[in-house]
Amino acid sequence: MKKLKIASIPGDGIGREVVPAAEDVLHTVAEIHGGLSFEFTNFPYSCEYYLEHGEMIPEDGLERLKDFHAIFLGAVGNIKLVPDHISLWGLLIKLRREFEQVINIRPAKVLKGVQSTLLNPNDFDLMVVRENSEGEYSSVGGRMFKGEDEIAIQNSIFSRKGTERAMRYAFELAEKRKKHVTSATKSNGIYYSMPFWDEVFKEVSKDYPNIDADSQHIDALAAFFVTQPERFDVIVASNLFGDVLTDIGAGIMGSVGIAPAANINVNGKYPSMFESVHGSAPDIIGKGIANPIGQIWTAKMMLDYFDEEELGTLLLDIVESVTGDRILTPDLGGKSSTKEVTNEIISRLKKRT
Amino acid sequence: MKKLKIASIPGDGIGREVVPAAEDVLHTVAEIHGGLSFEFTNFPYSCEYYLEHGEMIPEDGLERLKDFHAIFLGAVGNIKLVPDHISLWGLLIKLRREFEQVINIRPAKVLKGVQSTLLNPNDFDLMVVRENSEGEYSSVGGRMFKGEDEIAIQNSIFSRKGTERAMRYAFELAEKRKKHVTSATKSNGIYYSMPFWDEVFKEVSKDYPNIDADSQHIDALAAFFVTQPERFDVIVASNLFGDVLTDIGAGIMGSVGIAPAANINVNGKYPSMFESVHGSAPDIIGKGIANPIGQIWTAKMMLDYFDEEELGTLLLDIVESVTGDRILTPDLGGKSSTKEVTNEIISRLKKRT
Ligand SMILES: CC(C)[C@H](C(=O)O)[C@@H](O)C(=O)O
Ligand SMILES: CC(C)[C@H](C(=O)O)[C@@H](O)C(=O)O
Repeated sequence: MKKLKIASIPGDGIGREVVPAAEDVLHTVAEIHGGLSFEFTNFPYSCEYYLEHGEMIPEDGLERLKDFHAIFLGAVGNIKLVPDHISLWGLLIKLRREFEQVINIRPAKVLKGVQSTLLNPNDFDLMVVRENSEGEYSSVGGRMFKGEDEIAIQNSIFSRKGTERAMRYAFELAEKRKKHVTSATKSNGIYYSMPFWDEVFKEVSKDYPNIDADSQHIDALAAFFVTQPERFDVIVASNLFGDVLTDIGAGIMGSVGIAPAANINVNGKYPSMFESVHGSAPDIIGKGIANPIGQIWTAKMMLDYFDEEELGTLLLDIVESVTGDRILTPDLGGKSSTKEVTNEIISRLKKRT
Repeated sequence: MKKLKIASIPGDGIGREVVPAAEDVLHTVAEIHGGLSFEFTNFPYSCEYYLEHGEMIPEDGLERLKDFHAIFLGAVGNIKLVPDHISLWGLLIKLRREFEQVINIRPAKVLKGVQSTLLNPNDFDLMVVRENSEGEYSSVGGRMFKGEDEIAIQNSIFSRKGTERAMRYAFELAEKRKKHVTSATKSNGIYYSMPFWDEVFKEVSKDYPNIDADSQHIDALAAFFVTQPERFDVIVASNLFGDVLTDIGAGIMGSVGIAPAANINVNGKYPSMFESVHGSAPDIIGKGIANPIGQIWTAKMMLDYFDEEELGTLLLDIVESVTGDRILTPDLGGKSSTKEVTNEIISRLKKRT
């Protein structure tokens, strides 16, 4: 029996609605497998937790989480309760850093029955590999002078190790896909970090002579996501560029509500973390209409991670059979509730057994 | 007689094809006006110039340019000849900095007859005000350590003056438009500069109580450009965020070949610079199929800048009458050449007189 112990952090807002839904789906998947089970342990870390305890996660929180096989995260942040940089650096970014989840991967492709926002989506199917631990997301910097002379300095810090690691991950992934890696750069405008990024990319690409490697400036690349997303297979990007590209990726898929993500710890020391891309969506909390597919597709990425790729593929197929029949939440133009979409996925999963 | 002396820098690649085309159009516009004339002086600064002279612009180049009423620029950069960071920092970024062109403005809207890449473009009409002098485009930083321990540090530097100036420009512009300003931020991920940016935005917005002001993180904002661009009126963004957003703006308009830009010197000390957004497009050089509309729309922005808004509006109307009749270059799905599109615009301008 393969028993997976998962730390579940629904977080804020609709995270609390979609995480339980995806957990139900995972239990069903485990039943189909027969020799697999999921044990979820719930952790309340969130903005509400912060209001009560003055911190997003207790002092021993990392200690409590570190021995789980994975973390399953909903959404963090609710600007009405806690400023974003406090909630995010206090929980999401903290977990990514402390647990050395140095790679973030996010696919973008059109699901059956889901209307892309593009006129000609041309069957794109791409994967963004985002450096997830350094770069533009750095707390090195500060402010100087007062009043009208004030300046803020923000350091971006790129290490060869971190940069190379993300790039190698991208090339390895491309080996299993369409054998094409595009590097997101901006070496024409950003003076030190991006020429460095380009250098490392050139070096690393030499080790993968059978992979087609090219570079695009982030501005042009973002535009290509809108004009010709089918150009791409794997894209490797810095922390910030990956952040922007993956939201555009969600946009062209049709809704941020369906986009999944995985934060991967590559050295096996700490748990990896699986989180849907959408936020806590304060405007629809409690309405029962949050789209569960982002979290369920995230569950599929977790299955893949645990070498259950067959089940992962089955799950995504079932999701597409449901979306294909236009059983959709309102963000995708449908009328179904979170529960209805989830139950339909579960009942079709069961019929497949 | 209003005689405008314009320094013309066609630059690289198709810049040399579209700048003369737009100049012909401007001469025609001047004839219609009667009391207006343009005198263009050509400067060869470009990558080819660099190969010959070892610099993108001669030592006294700025001196030669500084007394013109404006600079009309095509495209800079050709990676086959000169690395981008050398050509761009040597010319484009240098001119923006030395001539204190601290604001970059770029509109995005759908032109008649031009197919947006979006399924539902819903008549968006937005303007990005980009801080054009500082922020992420800084040459402060460097590298440290060797081999696998190497790091690159890149400073972003935000001044209160520069930040506030861009924001005030955006609010003033919104006064003349739909009275809505959106600030592009990323204060949930970028630790020092973006919370500072937010603070300044909050303060400045208090001086414009009749303008609707809101903030969006750059990732969500980029996605909204693809899902609901009609949400926006004026967007104020840092140098990098503005760069990315305006290329997405060009993408949703249908082609980067039609997007215009203005680099504005706001203190009147130096010339402003008008440049189309597209690059030098090495793949189509000499084929006679470069889209002249980006440069011609840029000419319209120059007319507006010289308080000839009526002529500016006329010019864009004529451009739209031509695109509306589907007289288009290949990038827009048409079969017309640069010359054919340009001549059609000129002949329709003449008929209007
Ligand atoms: C060529 C490059 C340096 C430039 C920029 O990033 O500013 C361009 O992309 C632009 O937007 O004008
Ligand atoms: C919430 C925010 C800090 C986060 C990020 O920028 O990494 C989010 O946008 C994401 O992409 O996971």
